[in-house]
Amino acid sequence: MRKIVLAQINTLAGDIKGNAVKIKEYILRAKQDNAELIVFPELSLIGYPFGDIFIRHKSLIDRQLEELNDIKKETTGITALIGFAEPNKNEGQKPFFNSVAVIQDGKIINTVRKRLLPNYSEFNDYRYFEPSHEEQKVFEIDGEVYGIIVCEDSFNDKSFFQQNSIYEIDPIEQLMKQKPQTIINCSCSPSRNGKEFIKNTLFSSIAKKYGVNYIYVNQSGYADNLCFDGTSRIYNKDGILTARAKSFEEEYFLTENYKAEINPIPSGMDKKVAINDFSMDYQNDLERTYKTIVFAIKEYFSKNGFSKAVLGLSGGLDSSVCAVLLADALGKENVWGISMPSKITSGESKNDAKVLAENLGINFFEVPLADTIEKMKSMLNFSFDNIKTDKYDKPTTIENLQARLRATILWSISNEYKYMLPIATSDKSEAYIGYATVNGDMSGGFAPIADVTKTKLFALADYMNKNRENKNVIPQSVLIKPPGAELKINPETGKTVCAEEDNMPYEFLDEIIWFVENSGYGFNDLMHHTFLYEKKHSLTTEQKTEWINKFFWKSKCAVYKWHILPPSVITDIHSINSVEYHQPIISRVF
Amino acid sequence: MRKIVLAQINTLAGDIKGNAVKIKEYILRAKQDNAELIVFPELSLIGYPFGDIFIRHKSLIDRQLEELNDIKKETTGITALIGFAEPNKNEGQKPFFNSVAVIQDGKIINTVRKRLLPNYSEFNDYRYFEPSHEEQKVFEIDGEVYGIIVCEDSFNDKSFFQQNSIYEIDPIEQLMKQKPQTIINCSCSPSRNGKEFIKNTLFSSIAKKYGVNYIYVNQSGYADNLCFDGTSRIYNKDGILTARAKSFEEEYFLTENYKAEINPIPSGMDKKVAINDFSMDYQNDLERTYKTIVFAIKEYFSKNGFSKAVLGLSGGLDSSVCAVLLADALGKENVWGISMPSKITSGESKNDAKVLAENLGINFFEVPLADTIEKMKSMLNFSFDNIKTDKYDKPTTIENLQARLRATILWSISNEYKYMLPIATSDKSEAYIGYATVNGDMSGGFAPIADVTKTKLFALADYMNKNRENKNVIPQSVLIKPPGAELKINPETGKTVCAEEDNMPYEFLDEIIWFVENSGYGFNDLMHHTFLYEKKHSLTTEQKTEWINKFFWKSKCAVYKWHILPPSVITDIHSINSVEYHQPIISRVF
Repeated sequence: MRKIVLAQINTLAGDIKGNAVKIKEYILRAKQDNAELIVFPELSLIGYPFGDIFIRHKSLIDRQLEELNDIKKETTGITALIGFAEPNKNEGQKPFFNSVAVIQDGKIINTVRKRLLPNYSEFNDYRYFEPSHEEQKVFEIDGEVYGIIVCEDSFNDKSFFQQNSIYEIDPIEQLMKQKPQTIINCSCSPSRNGKEFIKNTLFSSIAKKYGVNYIYVNQSGYADNLCFDGTSRIYNKDGILTARAKSFEEEYFLTENYKAEINPIPSGMDKKVAINDFSMDYQNDLERTYKTIVFAIKEYFSKNGFSKAVLGLSGGLDSSVCAVLLADALGKENVWGISMPSKITSGESKNDAKVLAENLGINFFEVPLADTIEKMKSMLNFSFDNIKTDKYDKPTTIENLQARLRATILWSISNEYKYMLPIATSDKSEAYIGYATVNGDMSGGFAPIADVTKTKLFALADYMNKNRENKNVIPQSVLIKPPGAELKINPETGKTVCAEEDNMPYEFLDEIIWFVENSGYGFNDLMHHTFLYEKKHSLTTEQKTEWINKFFWKSKCAVYKWHILPPSVITDIHSINSVEYHQPIISRVF
Repeated sequence: MRKIVLAQINTLAGDIKGNAVKIKEYILRAKQDNAELIVFPELSLIGYPFGDIFIRHKSLIDRQLEELNDIKKETTGITALIGFAEPNKNEGQKPFFNSVAVIQDGKIINTVRKRLLPNYSEFNDYRYFEPSHEEQKVFEIDGEVYGIIVCEDSFNDKSFFQQNSIYEIDPIEQLMKQKPQTIINCSCSPSRNGKEFIKNTLFSSIAKKYGVNYIYVNQSGYADNLCFDGTSRIYNKDGILTARAKSFEEEYFLTENYKAEINPIPSGMDKKVAINDFSMDYQNDLERTYKTIVFAIKEYFSKNGFSKAVLGLSGGLDSSVCAVLLADALGKENVWGISMPSKITSGESKNDAKVLAENLGINFFEVPLADTIEKMKSMLNFSFDNIKTDKYDKPTTIENLQARLRATILWSISNEYKYMLPIATSDKSEAYIGYATVNGDMSGGFAPIADVTKTKLFALADYMNKNRENKNVIPQSVLIKPPGAELKINPETGKTVCAEEDNMPYEFLDEIIWFVENSGYGFNDLMHHTFLYEKKHSLTTEQKTEWINKFFWKSKCAVYKWHILPPSVITDIHSINSVEYHQPIISRVF
């Protein structure tokens, strides 16, 4: 019986001691189970992503090697694969290799170094690591020959990627010359919309093509805006999935003869995403999005020592969705939803906020702002009397004042109470065009939905209403009313201005975002493109031009806001999160 | 007569049209001057730093090549060297080369590609560019043979860098096989403390070693937290400086027979910095720091369409220094300084703010906060009555409330008036340990001094008092009183708590920062280190341990704040600015 443990651990970057303790516990347990091999994720000893930790804190380098040395002692009778940052002594090269130590019976018998170093999107491998130019070595346990690769090394199969290949060599092709019977992939692979489809089909096709077992071990956890879904697994020599660990959960996953339980993945997660086609059918990504965000909240809070959240409830979509996600991540008793109506807040909004909180069972109360706003206004008017220079002819100041007072209340509460973080409720569509207030709704200790577009949020709200144990917590009225910040009154209608009047229909905006992010579309490309919205509504060229122009102009001005967005979690195919996307504030793209 | 123009231009990333217009104007002028060669900086056509512009806005790629084609037509009778992002068609490689087109009489006769790609600190070359493996080609004008290198290609002279070499090859050594008589270095090199010493000695030594003229062309300008000082120059075959363009200014710099004016550089800018030694003598870096920040403010404002600034004046050091820098960058008539005293603000502080503003001649008025704070407090107390969970036993809430109300006033003013930005006055020492309020003093459209430590700020204030035309604008009382935010009263003394009581002496803190940033010191290294402070004062091991512990603990908690710091400008040897330093919020280094 061949027993292998897929150690789908959750690490903390820089916490070498803590990571080492966990690794040793897992090894001990694997030995008790008579496993012959235990596989940890990429860079598991230092923790990933570790950013510039080794640059500013050099003493950690030695500490890592000391811990590795200590772990060796625990490997009597077992083989352990442990990812670590291996110092590179070669002059004129990067200071580390991204390596996996093969430790057998107390000795490092082999060190495998990553060859393909991703340096795009959220990845910065080449900042720290020297790419290895050596073919990877195999090792043997009881006559079975194993070949090891590190994450990206598996992502250049020429028959799979064809013209989309971004590297010259295929490490697996080269590794196969040594005829391993099983390939082991030690990874740290963040979750994104559409990624599971690629991983599943790629790994399966490699297993089948070479007639090898394929073991994939991914870390579970969240850090630095990235969520790692785990979902470690094995494919057999026919490319058939034979074992799969849980998703979004740390797990000690014992397999026997390359088989074990096949845990379910979030519904639709492995479906292909047609990036050349925008659709409002988000069905295949809702459960994964929900789990990604809930897991990220849990992780962000617990790893930073927080356990409670406070947010403003406007009765609108964004704050309602955030409240549900927070309640599910932290427990409803640990969430405070506060309604902070101003003079122009509608009775319906106030009621929606209250009903949501009651349905959800979170803590709730109302703080009327009208008096304080009047006081602040008179203070501001005093200031304005003292400043003689050109004014804007726009109601922006008072709109934003409401949002800022709300954020001040939330931050004050988080200052007053232990372990409590205020929440930024901005969504991705609004962040894209800067339709969020600095020090207002875009401010917070964490921004759960900053990478979810508005049209997808409607679908997510509907999904949560149907799929949680406690159903329909978000009132139907929230799902059907047009979104708006309720910060100003339209003098013609006497009603609060909805966001689509200020900007453009969200359906149209979200399609622009889709093609800018996924296809690199510019103004002309978008003008030539037929929008889904156009198929349903009449749209003049003038209106289309105005909206596309508005998008580029507003997103240019929003780049500053992208740079100061609170920590969030990437869930989409692409994101404006600064961990992934580097757009200088001073630039022109239009 | 050999006439060469060093085109020290200021570019805007992505504004290919605007950059091309400028390039053509410069070429035209050079032709009028009968110059035979004009040299533009690295990546001058696309503008640097351009971040992910080509990734999200693919149409710019073609536009760049169209403009390059158009520029060609202007080169009759002249040779122009123009930096651009050259698309790389090779499969499995990065999408561009970082190239310089050698355009002569309407034709690209040569394309030189960068070989050494920096990918550390603020540099991300390898994210976009394929390193060239070809030796660089030379070209000839009237019998003179020129060799071109791109920026970093000049930074691996083995005899100069010795064991600090971070690349395997030395492109200049290889280039010399083709016996150029002159080396031209097209660069985009940001200004930092200590960098000019390296550039000057390195370039001079290369010129002398190989017996060549060395022409260095650097861009001037600011973007994305980086300030480019220009200071283009020529060294002759003996390594002697024979021409130097201005610093921190765009310039058309015409040279004749490798000679021209040698413009002065900021005093002390070329002095060596001993990074293994902390000193409070900042003299050699004050003029450069001053010019860097003033230039950055000018650039940030003008390139983003702003012309006015509003800031809170507390009567303390940080806001006073910011006010002077802003007045010098934008004109005193474009700066509004507002005193916003609360109940605990001392009369002395109020007076210092007023005197500073009067001395400086900026707009000034006072807005008392006490009433509004009382109103906000009662609103908060109402909220607190509704929340039953563990409170902190600290006065943080009310301290921060004052800072947030001040920021709200500043942001409201910037919302109300055209082209006006609020200023974040946080300094580097305080940012490092998070001694700044979210949505308070650390919030703003720009943060001028976020990379200047407190002890250096005192020196900078003194420098400005002595070296501006209008002398001693910062009152002496500001320079001698202990810094403090005046946000709380010490119940024992009845006086406001100064920052050093809350934290540790700034001299001690700044020395920790120095060794963490420059030497990668950890806790143990710092404990074994003898601080300057210790040489002057008695310090128990307990106190030393407490302060060092406090530094690591507070800076761990401050990483969130580093991530949301407003745009600033890097001036120090190293910085916590996220453009340079990548520290995950979720991490442990201690």
